[in-house]
Order: sequence, then structure tokens, then C-alpha cells
Amino acid sequence: MIFTELHSQVRYKTDHGLRNIIDILPNHAASLKSAMHYALLAGGKRTRPLLVYLMGETIAAEEADMLTISMAIECIHAYSLVHDDLPAMDDDDLRRGKPTCHMAYDEATAILAGDALQSLAFTLLADHPMSSFGNENRIKLVSILAKSAGYLGMCGGQAIDLQSTGRAISLAELTQLHQLKTGALLCACAEMVTTVSPGLSHIHANAFVDYARLIGLIFQIQDDILDVEGHSDVIGKPQGSDLEQGKNTFPALLGLHSAKEELAKLHQQALQALAGLPYNTEALSAFTDFVVKRDH
Amino acid sequence: MIFTELHSQVRYKTDHGLRNIIDILPNHAASLKSAMHYALLAGGKRTRPLLVYLMGETIAAEEADMLTISMAIECIHAYSLVHDDLPAMDDDDLRRGKPTCHMAYDEATAILAGDALQSLAFTLLADHPMSSFGNENRIKLVSILAKSAGYLGMCGGQAIDLQSTGRAISLAELTQLHQLKTGALLCACAEMVTTVSPGLSHIHANAFVDYARLIGLIFQIQDDILDVEGHSDVIGKPQGSDLEQGKNTFPALLGLHSAKEELAKLHQQALQALAGLPYNTEALSAFTDFVVKRDH
Repeated sequence: MIFTELHSQVRYKTDHGLRNIIDILPNHAASLKSAMHYALLAGGKRTRPLLVYLMGETIAAEEADMLTISMAIECIHAYSLVHDDLPAMDDDDLRRGKPTCHMAYDEATAILAGDALQSLAFTLLADHPMSSFGNENRIKLVSILAKSAGYLGMCGGQAIDLQSTGRAISLAELTQLHQLKTGALLCACAEMVTTVSPGLSHIHANAFVDYARLIGLIFQIQDDILDVEGHSDVIGKPQGSDLEQGKNTFPALLGLHSAKEELAKLHQQALQALAGLPYNTEALSAFTDFVVKRDH
Repeated sequence: MIFTELHSQVRYKTDHGLRNIIDILPNHAASLKSAMHYALLAGGKRTRPLLVYLMGETIAAEEADMLTISMAIECIHAYSLVHDDLPAMDDDDLRRGKPTCHMAYDEATAILAGDALQSLAFTLLADHPMSSFGNENRIKLVSILAKSAGYLGMCGGQAIDLQSTGRAISLAELTQLHQLKTGALLCACAEMVTTVSPGLSHIHANAFVDYARLIGLIFQIQDDILDVEGHSDVIGKPQGSDLEQGKNTFPALLGLHSAKEELAKLHQQALQALAGLPYNTEALSAFTDFVVKRDH
């Protein structure tokens, strides 16, 4: 299957699955339910589910397991965007060209929507249909996702980001920041889908996680470059907003030219990581190119 | 064992366990780590762990399982207090007589501390030592806790609370609000500890959950009464603050006298629920009296 076709299918499946989960909730707190729907279904690219499916199809994971993992990871991702956009955090009014959750609703509802989406991620890992092999491994998935979302992952990374905004940090610190803030959740995609793929060797499972780690850095460097070179109406937020907020970025630290060289180097490393695996990784190679070349 | 002695032991064990979990975290985001420590270990009464241990000892649950459940539930409880106190929510400066988390740190750190504590709750249920029977039932615990914390429980209740502040609601609505906001997590204590108690019948497990539901309402009505009658320096927050914020409370809806009558009625119902169980529920009866008569 060609890469863009799979991406459409993954978006459809993930959106459809998440919409159903929200729709069946009772209406006792209608604004909160609506805000959760808004945050989850506001047109995300579903990059993480795409990575789950690309890897999962490569190593023969079951459809139900890939879908449940994708939905859970998107709940965590969506909650993190809602909280990151809050006035006390990055104070963003727009996300993907639309009002952020606290602008469309209010701050209290946005905080609660994020909180409830985090809980929902774990409800999905505990209760959403999975294959029999997936069922046996649910608690491992909870362990992976909780660790990657918390202090040792995403929340820790966001805290370092806030601490270091407005002051210069080293390349090593910036790399750690992004490995936690963005990388941890992408690594969790790889760890979770390899967990539900029977017969995969530890060495190959680790290679998939290493690949996901590289994708995380590539993703972030390209994000930073887009903040310098992208068009506001394409990237869905004001161009130059990172710079304006005093954020540490790879172009700010290395210069734009060197940031692009670093991106090209990581691109090659990621392709090499795939080439070493005894699977057909053509679609994952195409995904790697997509992440490097995306314009939003 | 007399009731107060068990309470001291439970506080010690829970505090000790949680302190160790935070202390071993690396220091990459020192403020966030410190805020998590502050939120978790700021002198909570550990009412929920006490309920877990009181029930668990009654039905022969294992020590390791009771401790893990207690620590997880306190992470959820602590995160909810941090977020509820935020300026966009209840805007409280004091909690248990100390500055709230966002006053002691800042709003962004408080939001992240809450988020990371929620993740930590699920990390504990997935990874913290449990008995072999507890191990087999970890994913059921995740399911129970995630549901009770999210839209169908605590977050949903807090959203209803915010929606209904400043406008009159019915007794049925107020009861639902509290059953979700406070009751869901107390019911989760009972559901979790009965889940890890081998040999317990469904009927008796349900009776423990019904008892916990009554305790939730008793707890809340007494909270509302303390807001009217308590002393600020004992309850740890300004007396009358619910009234001032336009919160719906049982005394505001029923009058103070009828609220006390309702409390007495629920007290009797809870004692009757215990009396119907084929266990020694003397300590749980003492706990029921403690919740009814507490002054903070």
C-alpha cells in the first residue's frame, strides 16, 4: 500500500474510533464533553497513529491492538496540546489555524478536558478491544504510556522547556528537552506496538525504538525550521512565534544552515536504522522522508 | 488494632512510600519534581488510604496491594487538589493552611505537577510491587482508577461543580455532582481493594462499594457543614469560602438543620450496610463515626 493511502486510512480509523468513544459518553457535563471532542478531533495529523500502523504492519501486529494504542496515544497527545496552550504555559490562541481549547471554551474547561483525556487514554488501554495477545500485554502498555507521559517523559520535557525559555542552553540540554517533550511519546508508540507483536526479537524491538527516537528529533528540528521559514497560514500558527517567546530552538542555537545539516544527518541515520532490520521497511522509509519534508 | 493507631500507620506507610517514589526521580526538572513532592506530601489526612486499609484488612487483602492502591489513589487525589485550586478553577491560595501549589511555585509548574501526578498513579498500578494475586489484577485496577478519575467520575463532577456555581441546582443534581466529584474516587478505593481480595463474593464486594458511596456523601455533607460552622485555623481554609464563591452546598440547599439530619440518616445507613456483612467491621464503624464527626 502506498504511504499516503495508509495515512488517510489511519486518520479515518483513529478519528472514527475517538469520535465514537466521546459520543457515547453521557451528557452530565456537556461543556466538558464538547471540549474533549474539540481537543481530540480538531484536525490533528495523526502522526503518532501513523507511526504505530507503519511499524505494526511491518511486524504483523493485530489491527485491534494498533487502533487501541493509536487512540490512547492521541488522547495523551491531545491533552498535552490543550495544557501547553494555556495562558500560564505557552499562551497560544491558535492551534492548527483554529482557536485553542481555552479560547473556544474557557481555561477551567480546558484544564479539565486535558485531565479527562489523560484518564481516557488509560481507560482505552484497559478496556478497548484488543487481540488475545494484546489483552495479555495491556498492563505493559499502561506502564510504557504512563512513563512516557509523566515526569520521566513529556511532562518533564515541558517543564525543562519552560525553565529554559529566555535563557541560552547547550545543544545537549536542548536535545534532552526534546527527547523528553516530543521524543518520549514517539518512542512509546514504538515500544507499545513492538510489545503487542508476538515473536519480535528484543534486538529488533530496540531498533524500532531507536528509529522512533531519531524520528522525534527529526520532527522537532523540522518544527523549529518551519517556525523560521514556514508560512503562518500553512503551519497554522504565527511564523516566528518560538523566536518571539524566547524559546530555545535548533536554528537559534546552531544557525539555520547547521540545523538543516543536522536534520540531513539524522535523516540518514534513521534510514540506516531501518535498513538494518530484516523486514520490508519501504513504507517507514517513505514516512521518514515525509517527516523531514513536511511543510506543516 | 484500635482505629487511630491504624490511621497513624497508614499515614506513615503512604507518606513513606510516596516520598521514596519522588526522591528516586532524576533531577532533570527540579522545580517540577519539588512541586510534585509538595503536592503529594503537604500533610494530607490520607482518608482514602485509610479506607483502603480498613476494608483490605477486613477482607484479608495483601499489604503490598493495599499500599500500591493507596499510593496510586493519593496521586490522583493530590493532582485533583492542585488543579482545583488553580486561579481558573476555585482560585484558592491556601490548602491545609499552606500556600497552594501554584502559590508556592507558579501556575505552569502546578498544572504540570498535576499532570505528572496523574501519570504517576498509573505507573504505580502498572509497576509498583504487588502480591501475585494483585499482579494478575493490575489492569482491572487501571480500569477502575481511570474511569473514576475521568469524565465519568471526578473530572465530570468538577465540571458540573463549575457549571453550577452561582446558580441554584436541585438536591438530585447536587448529589450527582458530589457522587462524581468526591464519591467516584472513594468508590474506586472499595472497588480496587475488593478486586485484589481473593474469594470475596460479588454481593459482598458490591456492599463495600455501596458503603464507600455513602461515605462519599457523608464526607461531602460534613465538609459543607464545616464550611459554615468550622474554624478557619482548624479546617485550613477561610470559613465560609464555599458560600462566598456561590458554591452549591447541602446547608445552602436544605438549611443547616436539615443538612445535619441528612448526615445523621446517611450515618445510620452506612452502619447498617456494614452490619449486613459477614466480617468484623468494627474498625469500619469507627471510621464511619470519624468521618461524621471530624472537625477538619
